[in-house]
Amino acid sequence: VTARWAAAVLGAGGYIGQHFVRLLADHPWFDLTHLVGSERSGGRRLEDAWALPDPPPAGFGRRRLEPMSPARLRRAGVRLVFSALPGTAAGPVESACQRAGLAVFSNASAHRMEPSVPLLVPEVNADHLRLLSSRRHRGGPLVTNPNCTSTGLVLALKPLLPLVRPSAIHVATYQALSGAGLPGVASLAAVDNVIPFIAGEEEKVARESAWILGTRSGVTVRPATTPILAHCARVPVRDGHLEAVTVVARSRPTADEIGRAWTSFDPLAGLDLPSAPHPPLQLRTEPDRPQPVRDRWAGDRPRTRGMAVVVGRVRWTPPNLRFFVLSHNAVRGGAGGSVLNAELAAARGVLGEPER
Amino acid sequence: VTARWAAAVLGAGGYIGQHFVRLLADHPWFDLTHLVGSERSGGRRLEDAWALPDPPPAGFGRRRLEPMSPARLRRAGVRLVFSALPGTAAGPVESACQRAGLAVFSNASAHRMEPSVPLLVPEVNADHLRLLSSRRHRGGPLVTNPNCTSTGLVLALKPLLPLVRPSAIHVATYQALSGAGLPGVASLAAVDNVIPFIAGEEEKVARESAWILGTRSGVTVRPATTPILAHCARVPVRDGHLEAVTVVARSRPTADEIGRAWTSFDPLAGLDLPSAPHPPLQLRTEPDRPQPVRDRWAGDRPRTRGMAVVVGRVRWTPPNLRFFVLSHNAVRGGAGGSVLNAELAAARGVLGEPER
Amino acid sequence: VTARWAAAVLGAGGYIGQHFVRLLADHPWFDLTHLVGSERSGGRRLEDAWALPDPPPAGFGRRRLEPMSPARLRRAGVRLVFSALPGTAAGPVESACQRAGLAVFSNASAHRMEPSVPLLVPEVNADHLRLLSSRRHRGGPLVTNPNCTSTGLVLALKPLLPLVRPSAIHVATYQALSGAGLPGVASLAAVDNVIPFIAGEEEKVARESAWILGTRSGVTVRPATTPILAHCARVPVRDGHLEAVTVVARSRPTADEIGRAWTSFDPLAGLDLPSAPHPPLQLRTEPDRPQPVRDRWAGDRPRTRGMAVVVGRVRWTPPNLRFFVLSHNAVRGGAGGSVLNAELAAARGVLGEPER
Amino acid sequence: VTARWAAAVLGAGGYIGQHFVRLLADHPWFDLTHLVGSERSGGRRLEDAWALPDPPPAGFGRRRLEPMSPARLRRAGVRLVFSALPGTAAGPVESACQRAGLAVFSNASAHRMEPSVPLLVPEVNADHLRLLSSRRHRGGPLVTNPNCTSTGLVLALKPLLPLVRPSAIHVATYQALSGAGLPGVASLAAVDNVIPFIAGEEEKVARESAWILGTRSGVTVRPATTPILAHCARVPVRDGHLEAVTVVARSRPTADEIGRAWTSFDPLAGLDLPSAPHPPLQLRTEPDRPQPVRDRWAGDRPRTRGMAVVVGRVRWTPPNLRFFVLSHNAVRGGAGGSVLNAELAAARGVLGEPER
Repeated sequence: VTARWAAAVLGAGGYIGQHFVRLLADHPWFDLTHLVGSERSGGRRLEDAWALPDPPPAGFGRRRLEPMSPARLRRAGVRLVFSALPGTAAGPVESACQRAGLAVFSNASAHRMEPSVPLLVPEVNADHLRLLSSRRHRGGPLVTNPNCTSTGLVLALKPLLPLVRPSAIHVATYQALSGAGLPGVASLAAVDNVIPFIAGEEEKVARESAWILGTRSGVTVRPATTPILAHCARVPVRDGHLEAVTVVARSRPTADEIGRAWTSFDPLAGLDLPSAPHPPLQLRTEPDRPQPVRDRWAGDRPRTRGMAVVVGRVRWTPPNLRFFVLSHNAVRGGAGGSVLNAELAAARGVLGEPER
Repeated sequence: VTARWAAAVLGAGGYIGQHFVRLLADHPWFDLTHLVGSERSGGRRLEDAWALPDPPPAGFGRRRLEPMSPARLRRAGVRLVFSALPGTAAGPVESACQRAGLAVFSNASAHRMEPSVPLLVPEVNADHLRLLSSRRHRGGPLVTNPNCTSTGLVLALKPLLPLVRPSAIHVATYQALSGAGLPGVASLAAVDNVIPFIAGEEEKVARESAWILGTRSGVTVRPATTPILAHCARVPVRDGHLEAVTVVARSRPTADEIGRAWTSFDPLAGLDLPSAPHPPLQLRTEPDRPQPVRDRWAGDRPRTRGMAVVVGRVRWTPPNLRFFVLSHNAVRGGAGGSVLNAELAAARGVLGEPER
Repeated sequence: VTARWAAAVLGAGGYIGQHFVRLLADHPWFDLTHLVGSERSGGRRLEDAWALPDPPPAGFGRRRLEPMSPARLRRAGVRLVFSALPGTAAGPVESACQRAGLAVFSNASAHRMEPSVPLLVPEVNADHLRLLSSRRHRGGPLVTNPNCTSTGLVLALKPLLPLVRPSAIHVATYQALSGAGLPGVASLAAVDNVIPFIAGEEEKVARESAWILGTRSGVTVRPATTPILAHCARVPVRDGHLEAVTVVARSRPTADEIGRAWTSFDPLAGLDLPSAPHPPLQLRTEPDRPQPVRDRWAGDRPRTRGMAVVVGRVRWTPPNLRFFVLSHNAVRGGAGGSVLNAELAAARGVLGEPER
Repeated sequence: VTARWAAAVLGAGGYIGQHFVRLLADHPWFDLTHLVGSERSGGRRLEDAWALPDPPPAGFGRRRLEPMSPARLRRAGVRLVFSALPGTAAGPVESACQRAGLAVFSNASAHRMEPSVPLLVPEVNADHLRLLSSRRHRGGPLVTNPNCTSTGLVLALKPLLPLVRPSAIHVATYQALSGAGLPGVASLAAVDNVIPFIAGEEEKVARESAWILGTRSGVTVRPATTPILAHCARVPVRDGHLEAVTVVARSRPTADEIGRAWTSFDPLAGLDLPSAPHPPLQLRTEPDRPQPVRDRWAGDRPRTRGMAVVVGRVRWTPPNLRFFVLSHNAVRGGAGGSVLNAELAAARGVLGEPER
């Protein structure tokens, strides 16, 4: 018998929320028992909000989004919630869930980088889960994943850092429309256009990436100090954030060493987490990859579609290491990242004993 | 009476060629008397190849593209040719035109950076016209304009250089589909996608930009030595190259000084060249500009539509100066740049006396 | 000395409103003196709302949108207003303008097909201007133009009707995103998609087209009775409504007669209206035209860009005459159509004597 | 033990070919043992040509496309081939395969509507398989599927015909870019545009649809006589053909009867074919469906993704029944349709005994 915990999705009618539903509908560890709507979408059927390329999972399309009530979720046996709530609503609702004793795995930015809240990308900083033991928080644990742009970036950087010891990291992004959620960007602003601005994004990329790549001692994190300078722009692509990265290196490894650092990187190798791709990084050697339309669904098996990050176009002209990295913003950079966080937490005992 | 010289367009059926026709159809100094096709398009009517948003200029749509013959052009009184020929064909045809005594203004890369061939952006390095006096070339003068990505970049950088004295320049581009000419990129590679590769482009941006920003003494050019590191990518935009630029500065001017350097930059102010925008750089202060669809046609009057370059999203966090720059790749970065070069050459006497 | 009347644009910050500003900024008969915003956009600078491919006309970008006050417009000498107000707001505001004695030319649907309100496409039913003499209206005259889809359709149909005497007309539309105004369709609903629904549009196409093609006697209109059956869909195109039309014919003219009916159609030939294209219909014989990106700006001179309607792909397999027709929805089908209506009204004396 | 036949894909590097590989990689009845390239793509690795949103099936990406040799396929035990060859190459290669004793299931148009070649959509005209018994053909059987536009149309029409007894059928299509294969339409012709022409398509829709909806007696088919009049246009959508259909009806069923005719239609209900969706038609009642991006992957289970056809926006204003229908052009209208044909043939004994 497989361990199972009952779960709810908060903000299930949004773009990330729908990806949560898609990923949890047949999850081997979590039972998706409740779909909670944001205030805007409450009462609608899931299928009426549905915007993903595949139809809603069997049995979920007709379900109506229910109003938020942490107490009711708790009474119904829910043990963990996945939050895809919009920015302003997320903070208080997630705190209320914690107070009700629920474990919270959040894609929202409200609580990121709070002292007792791990900002987690399992392959990069699994040890940050220890922040939960600071127990400054009352009630259930809260674990966040970073903004969708940082996720791909830190995964590509992590195995490089000891090798190249960068003095600066320059990033320019080609971000997908779905990163803005629903309804998102107006079509007359998107079609045949690029918008060189995403509110708050460049700061998030710098701050959250440095945090995740930082070092933990006890229950405190010291952010990495290498400056990360980002240009963030929106392109007319539905899904998949592409990033042009230039790492200014202090060391001079060989090109082979760099390639091997990426392809041999698999820190979750022994853990059997259902949503962990192995390896998490795919290195493409064609001249014109990665591309959103061809690489955003990278993964090694059906459950990890869109969970692998693709690196390519590597040009090593010391001291500048240049490459492109692509990740599916709504999967690895959103709902999938959060589900993987919950799986790691479950494997580490954070969720307690399964009830079913 | 206005001075007039008869002109021909080579490769008039291509995307840049059509822009040449559009710009020259009612030009105050040049008479467009001949439309020469590439081998592929010869014999077709111009309107059958036409791909621009406005219809062909009155009287030109029905004209057929004629085969190439420098001697015939010369006999017909043509004094200058504008070359929009594809890469491989351009070299020998342009040389043949020179030998026939024609002045050549070329958008092709074949002869760029040859010792006696100015690689010209008039606001940036008008003095490079002097290379023509080396007279290593036989016959007519040949003047080239750089690749479409370098043009916007060097215009934005020129007024900055003395102010910030950069140690490195990082660029990531969001290049339009039309930069690949006709037929260009396949739609299944373009729609809902970004292609992080344009053959040879990153090298051209580095090399040609350094050349244009270099210093001339006599008839030799010493390229600028600041490294320019480019990531070049194609986005699903019809026209308009956007570039994310990070200048690593050695000096620390104020933000105001930087802004004024751009807005007061107008080195062609006194010259009355028909296609020179005044000022050539427009600085936008909105948070989300420049954008291809809103800024690619920037200019101060009908004839300079698409000739002005738009700078915006300036963030000055010393030592890193970050901004976006946008230019119309087929106008300022293509046909329009070449026409402006010819106007400067005419004003400097390079074309000799007008015949009409 | 040219006659001149002072004019205002209502809803100048919207998509159609911006086209009004563009067309009126240097109009030979009308002085654009006032830019009135909708409630939503009031107080903004025009350039901050600007969404058209060319920059705002010189001198207009910095102007702020002013609040609505018919009395103030009247006191300032305004004689006519062009209304690009959104559906719900248009009705009462336009009526208030009429009561203040202003002539109203409206792109809104609020008053279309009211007994004393001409629904006008000058080449098709100029005589409907006579409805103004019913003088059921108090104050200034009100003239409307039809929805953007009907305009192209009735222009293509008008010269055909006596020739083919249709028993039914089937239309399927490929409508541009800009038809939905600003902000309009969400990009995730638009990119890589078609939306087979536009609220109320199919009914409007049927009803308004029949009205315009109807016969007037005195001050009453009897709509045409041939059923017009429309499928309306939105495609990821910025501008230009394409329509696939099948006319089920009772008569059997030759293909030549059909072609000549279109190309010889020019009922405004003698009138010298500034915005009237001559001819209003362009017939393309290539196999793959008309196309939005190549034909939406059709016109015979700078002022009539986007005012001509393009017909092509004619297939005459009796009794079914099939063709495609394209018109610029925001120009001929929007602001330009309304300006042409005002020109016709001015030429017919509806505006009274010019004041300047 | 499940029956298994060895299979090859011809033209595996093309867009339809890749869908064949995707669908056959883990097919329960067919073993995909050989990937044959077209002349153009021979020798390449499959992954280098891959253009689908998901990565190549495990184990197939690195395989090289082999040259065509019917004899070698036969010696290797291949029993059936799926042909995605381009138009001109398909005819002789498919005939050679037949002569080698292979069963051929073809997406190409070369042999469609030949007397002994069923043009098959299993839910519509399964009985046309009988044409194989005419045995005018030598060697293996050849079964074709229609062009991608006809497939969705005939599926939507089949249950309607006895109910509405149409006198004419009007269709206007919104066809996806992938229908043109690789490399297909140029991006400058596609982005922000509609192309109202697809060579030969309108004739194919009329002719093939009438054939499939025709009646068979013995080994001859009498095509349906209701005229089908199509406008075919290409829109900037990657996958999914949308069609606007108007059926001019002679009978007057109720709207309920029409809806039930569609939703109860499932002629393959008892057959257990792996790729047959149940039901094959999905009726959407929302006002704005079907849409390519939301409905193209319709199906009732993983293997039938993209095999169901979606009908919606039904408007019944007698005598005109109007609706939209959507099908995935490369799945149901291409590779998937052909695989389903092979399954039906296998179930009917056409393939003989399985060898494995």
